[in-house]
Amino acid sequence: MPEMALRTIGVIRNGLTEPPSPRGAWRTMVSEIEIEYGLVDALDGIEEFSHLIVLWWMHRLSETGMPLRVHPDRRPDAPLKGIFAARTPDRPNRIGLGVVRLVACSGNSLRVEGLDALDGSPVIDIKPYIVASDAVSDARIPAWLTG
Amino acid sequence: MPEMALRTIGVIRNGLTEPPSPRGAWRTMVSEIEIEYGLVDALDGIEEFSHLIVLWWMHRLSETGMPLRVHPDRRPDAPLKGIFAARTPDRPNRIGLGVVRLVACSGNSLRVEGLDALDGSPVIDIKPYIVASDAVSDARIPAWLTG
Repeated sequence: MPEMALRTIGVIRNGLTEPPSPRGAWRTMVSEIEIEYGLVDALDGIEEFSHLIVLWWMHRLSETGMPLRVHPDRRPDAPLKGIFAARTPDRPNRIGLGVVRLVACSGNSLRVEGLDALDGSPVIDIKPYIVASDAVSDARIPAWLTG
Repeated sequence: MPEMALRTIGVIRNGLTEPPSPRGAWRTMVSEIEIEYGLVDALDGIEEFSHLIVLWWMHRLSETGMPLRVHPDRRPDAPLKGIFAARTPDRPNRIGLGVVRLVACSGNSLRVEGLDALDGSPVIDIKPYIVASDAVSDARIPAWLTG
């Protein structure tokens, strides 16, 4: 088996110590990502993309452990569904994924809009968003998910 | 620092021992994802989504180590760009990310179309694709990337 230990490539700074209220407020919020100084050259060219995919570690442990089913969207009235059919942080590997707009890039700092992450979260990868492979504008979601 | 060790949640089966030729052939290729039996309940409801985001570990070590810059699209004539501005497997954390179409779901098996992964790759997360947060149909990419 391969070793699958992650290393931190940066950290998220946005002052959020709790999920924002109202819940969807993260969509227009700007976060800073501080990249480790030794990796600054790896950002070369990133400013030419309008959007990025950010992966981070959801470092705040859940109080509920890892159930196999959750109420989607944290709505108690929604039917229980599998965690792989939900974007809940309660999952076997606590990797958060967000598609963000790149607002600015300077030195080892990225400013991005639309990151649903808490302050201090370790960043583990940044990938450029490429429409041809990442955008599916007609993807179907079930009625029990509000999107 | 939080511990960031990943666990395998399943494995990719598609018979690919090398990247396909021509390179883009993966877009229409169907792969099977075998989920660990203990996690089958976590798939509940996933069949109601048309598309998924699959994260896997790129378990085949690169011969080049981890450069901070690469030629995008593996084209030697393309200018060197940072690895965070490219989708190269040569990155600090070897996490592959693919948006796939869900073809079928039965028991602990998912059949998906469009996974750019090699046979035997450990799967580390599956998330439902949600247009409202994941689809950016007008995202801009630079001219040096063919998409």
